[in-house]
Amino acid sequence: MHRTHTCGELRESHIGTTVTLSGWVQKRRDFGAMTFIDLRDRYGLTQLSFNEELDKDLNERARSLGREYVVKVYGKVIERSNKNDKMPTGDIEIQVTAIEVLNEALTPPFTIEDETDGGEEIRLKYRYLDLRRNPIQEKLILRSKLNKAVRDYLNDADFIDVETPYLIKSTPEGARDFVVPSRLNEGQYYALPQSPQTFKQLLMVSGFDKYYQIVKCFRDEDFRADRQPEFTQIDCEMSFVERDDVLDTFEGMIRSVFKQVKDIDLGDIPKLTYDEAMRRFGSDKPDMRFGMELIDLDEVAKGNGFGVFDNADSVVAINVTGGNSYTRKELDAFTNWVKRPQIGALGLIYCRVNADGTYKSSVDKFFDQDKLKSWAETCGSQADDLILVLSGNTEKVRKQMNELRLHVGELRGLRPRDKFSACWVVDFPLVEYDEESDRWHAMHHPFTSPIPADRAKMKTDPSSVKANAYDMAINGMEVGGGSIRIHDKELQKRMFDLLGFTPEEAQEQFGFLLNAFEYGAPPHGGIAFGLDRLSGILAGTDSIRDVIAFPKNNMGRDIMIDAPAPLNADQKRELGY
Amino acid sequence: MHRTHTCGELRESHIGTTVTLSGWVQKRRDFGAMTFIDLRDRYGLTQLSFNEELDKDLNERARSLGREYVVKVYGKVIERSNKNDKMPTGDIEIQVTAIEVLNEALTPPFTIEDETDGGEEIRLKYRYLDLRRNPIQEKLILRSKLNKAVRDYLNDADFIDVETPYLIKSTPEGARDFVVPSRLNEGQYYALPQSPQTFKQLLMVSGFDKYYQIVKCFRDEDFRADRQPEFTQIDCEMSFVERDDVLDTFEGMIRSVFKQVKDIDLGDIPKLTYDEAMRRFGSDKPDMRFGMELIDLDEVAKGNGFGVFDNADSVVAINVTGGNSYTRKELDAFTNWVKRPQIGALGLIYCRVNADGTYKSSVDKFFDQDKLKSWAETCGSQADDLILVLSGNTEKVRKQMNELRLHVGELRGLRPRDKFSACWVVDFPLVEYDEESDRWHAMHHPFTSPIPADRAKMKTDPSSVKANAYDMAINGMEVGGGSIRIHDKELQKRMFDLLGFTPEEAQEQFGFLLNAFEYGAPPHGGIAFGLDRLSGILAGTDSIRDVIAFPKNNMGRDIMIDAPAPLNADQKRELGY
Repeated sequence: MHRTHTCGELRESHIGTTVTLSGWVQKRRDFGAMTFIDLRDRYGLTQLSFNEELDKDLNERARSLGREYVVKVYGKVIERSNKNDKMPTGDIEIQVTAIEVLNEALTPPFTIEDETDGGEEIRLKYRYLDLRRNPIQEKLILRSKLNKAVRDYLNDADFIDVETPYLIKSTPEGARDFVVPSRLNEGQYYALPQSPQTFKQLLMVSGFDKYYQIVKCFRDEDFRADRQPEFTQIDCEMSFVERDDVLDTFEGMIRSVFKQVKDIDLGDIPKLTYDEAMRRFGSDKPDMRFGMELIDLDEVAKGNGFGVFDNADSVVAINVTGGNSYTRKELDAFTNWVKRPQIGALGLIYCRVNADGTYKSSVDKFFDQDKLKSWAETCGSQADDLILVLSGNTEKVRKQMNELRLHVGELRGLRPRDKFSACWVVDFPLVEYDEESDRWHAMHHPFTSPIPADRAKMKTDPSSVKANAYDMAINGMEVGGGSIRIHDKELQKRMFDLLGFTPEEAQEQFGFLLNAFEYGAPPHGGIAFGLDRLSGILAGTDSIRDVIAFPKNNMGRDIMIDAPAPLNADQKRELGY
Repeated sequence: MHRTHTCGELRESHIGTTVTLSGWVQKRRDFGAMTFIDLRDRYGLTQLSFNEELDKDLNERARSLGREYVVKVYGKVIERSNKNDKMPTGDIEIQVTAIEVLNEALTPPFTIEDETDGGEEIRLKYRYLDLRRNPIQEKLILRSKLNKAVRDYLNDADFIDVETPYLIKSTPEGARDFVVPSRLNEGQYYALPQSPQTFKQLLMVSGFDKYYQIVKCFRDEDFRADRQPEFTQIDCEMSFVERDDVLDTFEGMIRSVFKQVKDIDLGDIPKLTYDEAMRRFGSDKPDMRFGMELIDLDEVAKGNGFGVFDNADSVVAINVTGGNSYTRKELDAFTNWVKRPQIGALGLIYCRVNADGTYKSSVDKFFDQDKLKSWAETCGSQADDLILVLSGNTEKVRKQMNELRLHVGELRGLRPRDKFSACWVVDFPLVEYDEESDRWHAMHHPFTSPIPADRAKMKTDPSSVKANAYDMAINGMEVGGGSIRIHDKELQKRMFDLLGFTPEEAQEQFGFLLNAFEYGAPPHGGIAFGLDRLSGILAGTDSIRDVIAFPKNNMGRDIMIDAPAPLNADQKRELGY
């Protein structure tokens, strides 16, 4: 037997008992005749003690144990003289009477501590050592709990967990597929799924009623930071539902997850329309942890001879509570920040709301104190606030102001990692026009239904048609999205028509789904959540890689196992290459 | 709202309430002025009634509804005049006051009934309709429950669910990999995992202590009936364990699964050594639902001048209780059965144990009544039993007798689908000699450890070395297998050496795992269960396809979506083909 207890388990009540522990040597401290070792496993740390006076040889052996050695020890649980109330096992230590070295260890290339000295590249190469670090292990344990919380909720709600295939058919629509050559069907390829979308819809046609799956999906994109070629989705679909049935169900799921995993009461999740979200936050995934909403300044800012405003579609402001304390230098830094190409504003106007009731703006030449007062009134500003203003094309200026709002919010500590605020965004546009391909593209996917009232406008005014689609955002990040699907074949044809598919193309690419819809498809809708993203948010990390056991780097390489790699000659021959 | 209740929900207590139901038209019966429709969803059937006298138009409309139409109905729950105690909703019916057709349906190419008239090919092509059939839907619901039962047990036992990557590196050892060309790393390929074996071992090196995952695996084999290119594994690994720790944990899991999913008490699961299993049953996955064990007849059968026995390595019998009732013709059929090339026996000897105390065998010329009596005594035969005897090479004759035992057991009703009997088989040989490649092959995989006592024999007598490996069989089918792994790098080198790997080859193929083992690998071991097989056994079906939502056919094709398929020109160009 390798252990009677784990390294996180022993307490004062165990004093006097004889135990066997196994684990890794975290740290050794040599003090005169005494040697102390912290023994580590997933469950915690336990202090081992050795005393030259009790057993000289054993004390010598203890001193030969290096970091990360794997050892088994036998000994008696004794009370610790200097207790450590920061460790759950801090009341006791083990007076060791025998050691067995289960495995030696080379010195790790970086220290296995909460804060390590290893760079990202070396930590990815030795991921199995990086994974020994508490902060990473905790995040993966949290992910496992999240997974369980999701399943518990959905199982209780009568969802059936159905596995859909991984070796499927490539569809040119959407992102690029990873493909898999078929040896038995020469010249033919499977594709790895970007999502189980069509299969889950087929399951609704089959009458499964409520489906879920936590499933890997694949997308062959040009990689950028924090994009992984393989990612995990919580994929769900329901029959005989309307939008609010879906939203209620999954609002319940997310609330239950936060409660179970973090003991946090997320409260009701507000619904914003897409138009409202863009107007109030300049984003379809607003960070609702703080206010500082976008304010339309058109009425009080235009028509005063300031050409920048007068010629702009929109003048938009935010009010920074207490922001008057920023120095001129700091305000210049904001200006430079918004002028960077990533944001692309031409400049930034400010107006200080002084404690003495005066105003000081960067456009005093055009706006007198009365005018600036009307800005402050429109913005609801109080003494010592700061108003920041951008202008230009409505869509662009909202996006820029969203970025500035998030930036200022971050600086002012309004976006703490341990606060969580979710919202639904609904009534997305159904389609968006793509200049490059000169055609309408589905904003979600071609199976998303328009909201019933807008169907008549699909031919006459496609850009004004709203989709029966919804996203959930938490802390400014999209965590899930879905829609009520089209289940009527006439409507589906109209949609394909709008997207520029010929009936032949539609049949070729989605024939099996369209055929299935001929045999009695129920009204249905669903949603998918990104498990990696959701885990990251719950774990309070910005990096998706922190919540993936074996992530790929920015080039899609696994540098630990050195994949991808060339095929050998036999494999090539068998595949006909 | 599409429904207030499901079609399986309404009972006598609902009588008088007004409800909305949605579902599929299962069956319509027109009787004079009355029309009855069975409305179906996943939860059950509810009878709808229409009466010409109450609403002539509505009755007309009801008669226009075809099979598999999707309809929503409003109406009152009333008591049924002729109750049907075979249906949970059989006490009530819905007096419909309004119908809305949600979707029409073409006539399905086969009937959506428990017993259908569709052949396998057509049912796979229209899998979404086949999946509407109760027997298939029930099997997939059972699979979902099984999945949950497994997770519940493992979560409770502190296992962490960790996802390992799907885009990994090809290893030439073992079965053939499916590969995935990398667009961003030209000429290089990922491989899809045949199992997460190395990753789960790395997680043990990382200190995860207890890992599990229910995960898709891939194997590019030449297909045969009931082999799928993608299959699902319950994959588990534990640290600081010895064999019995693993067996106890997973015996608990299987018992818990049977209890939760089928309310069956599986009882203790016996352990047989490989040698014992081969001797008693001629199989390393014995069907323990019945006895009829193999009996060594060497002592009483050899040395009597019957050359067939005298020249055989082994003479093996089974005793068929009550088998004397078989006619001569039936016995001839057994002889023909064992002589088929799949079994390959040269003949079959029988001995009838008559009720009058006499014996009648097919080799009376060589064996008198006394001799035959000693056969019967050796076999523990009673009056009216039948002894069946095969002889030849020990290994071959045991395998043949295993087949015959299963065949006779099947005929005699000793292998009922609703009886479950599990066993462990332990102490497998570590390696087996492969004539073709003229080298030793690992019977499990190269990371399986030999049992400690046999290590010294690895060089001198490899074939006699037992592995610290174990399989679980249920009803004669292997459902899981695993081993205590090698965690010591010297032993691992010796193993690679035995398998004919040069140190360079070992380093090239398993370098990252061998390197990881340098940094403090704990003793560890694990197991993997086949979820498809386990689901099939619990569902009482021989066909794996019955428990897979969207299976491939024998050529690895999904004939519903028509995959695999050729790539288009863009895809080819991007991959450099």
